[in-house]
Amino acid sequence: MTISKGPQLFPREEYLRRLAAVKKEMAQRDIDAFIVSSPANITYLSGHTAHTAYVPQGLVISMQEEEPTFIMRRMDAPAAIHESFLNRNNVIGYPENLIANPEKDGYDVIIDFLHERGLANRGVGLEPGFLTLKQFGRGQDKFAIRLPKARIVDCSRAIDWIRLVKSDLEIAVMREAAAIADAAIMRAAAVIRPGVREADAAAEVVGTLIRGANGKPGTAIAPYCMCSSPRTGTAHIRWSDDVFREDSQINLEVGAVRQGYTAALMRTYIIGKPSDRLRRLHEAEVAGLEAALNTVRPGATCSDVANAFYRTLEKQGFTKESRCGYAIGIDWTEPTASLRDGDTTVLKPNMTFHVMLGNWVEEDFGYAISETFRVTDSGSEALTTAPRKLFEL
Amino acid sequence: MTISKGPQLFPREEYLRRLAAVKKEMAQRDIDAFIVSSPANITYLSGHTAHTAYVPQGLVISMQEEEPTFIMRRMDAPAAIHESFLNRNNVIGYPENLIANPEKDGYDVIIDFLHERGLANRGVGLEPGFLTLKQFGRGQDKFAIRLPKARIVDCSRAIDWIRLVKSDLEIAVMREAAAIADAAIMRAAAVIRPGVREADAAAEVVGTLIRGANGKPGTAIAPYCMCSSPRTGTAHIRWSDDVFREDSQINLEVGAVRQGYTAALMRTYIIGKPSDRLRRLHEAEVAGLEAALNTVRPGATCSDVANAFYRTLEKQGFTKESRCGYAIGIDWTEPTASLRDGDTTVLKPNMTFHVMLGNWVEEDFGYAISETFRVTDSGSEALTTAPRKLFEL
Repeated sequence: MTISKGPQLFPREEYLRRLAAVKKEMAQRDIDAFIVSSPANITYLSGHTAHTAYVPQGLVISMQEEEPTFIMRRMDAPAAIHESFLNRNNVIGYPENLIANPEKDGYDVIIDFLHERGLANRGVGLEPGFLTLKQFGRGQDKFAIRLPKARIVDCSRAIDWIRLVKSDLEIAVMREAAAIADAAIMRAAAVIRPGVREADAAAEVVGTLIRGANGKPGTAIAPYCMCSSPRTGTAHIRWSDDVFREDSQINLEVGAVRQGYTAALMRTYIIGKPSDRLRRLHEAEVAGLEAALNTVRPGATCSDVANAFYRTLEKQGFTKESRCGYAIGIDWTEPTASLRDGDTTVLKPNMTFHVMLGNWVEEDFGYAISETFRVTDSGSEALTTAPRKLFEL
Repeated sequence: MTISKGPQLFPREEYLRRLAAVKKEMAQRDIDAFIVSSPANITYLSGHTAHTAYVPQGLVISMQEEEPTFIMRRMDAPAAIHESFLNRNNVIGYPENLIANPEKDGYDVIIDFLHERGLANRGVGLEPGFLTLKQFGRGQDKFAIRLPKARIVDCSRAIDWIRLVKSDLEIAVMREAAAIADAAIMRAAAVIRPGVREADAAAEVVGTLIRGANGKPGTAIAPYCMCSSPRTGTAHIRWSDDVFREDSQINLEVGAVRQGYTAALMRTYIIGKPSDRLRRLHEAEVAGLEAALNTVRPGATCSDVANAFYRTLEKQGFTKESRCGYAIGIDWTEPTASLRDGDTTVLKPNMTFHVMLGNWVEEDFGYAISETFRVTDSGSEALTTAPRKLFEL
């Protein structure tokens, strides 16, 4: 029996519009076939979100075909048929004996497909950064060896730049994700107390990220970081075996995922009263956050936004070494625009960013605040709406 | 102020023993420096588990030094000082302006370090499968270009083969993880009911994976898959927006993580009475599972174990296309031994495997059962102990 088509997040026209933009780019680069390997780009162009990138896979876009062809492990093909907008004939599962097989793997099937479709003799676009197969060897050289007549073109980030500007349909989904992130941040404020295990609080917060908000559940679990005293100077520890204590400070970073789209949010919590230093840093960071968001408008650059933050922070006697954020959408961090000094990307309406103001001041002292926002026609709109306060618990 | 050293999972001698085994391998390959990039191998050799592999990092082992040097993003260095057994001077954070910087990145800092330490003119081991930086470019060529006098040696999987056999200390941690996996599987049986949203059940199961068992919390969230009707023919969908219904079947795969070590477990649930076909498949799979576990003993091969399963299943009128499992430990799937036909790896005591008998028979029909087990001196011991039943809810 065949699997049914699942509910579709976006209409077919939305995917065809995205594909048209990619094909325009392909034409400019004079390539006939584009082997898309980035999981986020595959989600963008097909609607597929299942966890399948742990083995070779590729979404092959041909200039001659309206729809791409998704080549993947056979075990995972039914998920793609169910989730994606693709015609079922455009999902090809390769045999299981290519898994953990040092002689031949899924990339060979993709290469065979190019030969069969007459796409092996002209320009072929790759995303080399996603071709290396982590667990069982290298994938990239194989393309050069087995496609000797093709002109291999590095198309890294070509699709990522296209998806930097979201459609209104995408913004609506990110808004759902943002509401979930807000709920998780508020749940943390409700459950973090002296004597509570960090793991028990994490279970509540992650549970909220999954249960969702406004009747819309989360649909995946993004990396979760809860760095509490004495670890507030660290950025990416999940949680520890400790319990919270009087005077514990907790820096929380959550990502809520709704049908592939992520909204991220950070807040800082203190059990009891904050130190003067923490309070001053919080006030400086909030002022910097507002200065950054007030700088956002179409025509401003990422660098302008970052520098608005840095200058405000410096006026209050603090500095931040790391960048101020990055484009966000599918799969959390997008690899294109950065909110950092010198990034000349010009903002456009419906670009979305995570303005990430985590500031790890010393090895044992840090602070976190952030928002997920979109660029509007005239400024910025924070999609996340949790209070911009230092939560005193 | 400096960050404190966190509680250590293993004594220093355990890490030095592991490093000695790696250095023996380095001597055989005539390399002076080994740049370890696999996050699981870094955990194995240092105790570091924080989420830091999203940007370039490397644990550099030198034949001249007892301890390795961990080079990573500055923001993340405090986590490594806190978590790892390394002397704080052996953790080097590189500047934040190397993030999202197309001119220079963390790999350049690692290469500079090799030059400074006089390690740039002889054999240098790499794990190329982990060098490609997903988001901001390619890392591998840089080593060839900037280390022209070095002999670059592909050391892929060298450490993975060493960590295939666990110490008793590692087995103890995996036993804690297995108890958490058992608890999660039982929690699913308690909460899956008609009318319950899949997301609400997922929140409960994941919550259990975080809260843990026997007073030992989970310490990270592994990929989670709950494939319910009409998606039982899929393998890696997280969950959906649906509610469970009368007659829903649910195939659940959980991974419990305890301080870096994973135990995985799969079970199948049915609301109401199973179809005859599902019941027969369940019985055949359990018989196959037992045949496989009864074949495990030091001296048998992975292929022997897989074929014991396949032959038993075939006698009952079923087949399974995919492999029967893989080595498991740090980071879930280890990239070495596979329980598949033709894998001649000889079993040794304290190797650990996930015997993974998920069987996606048709696009719309599948079944899942598995155990995490260790090889004992004379046979096998399942670390996971949930009932091997088809859960009828």
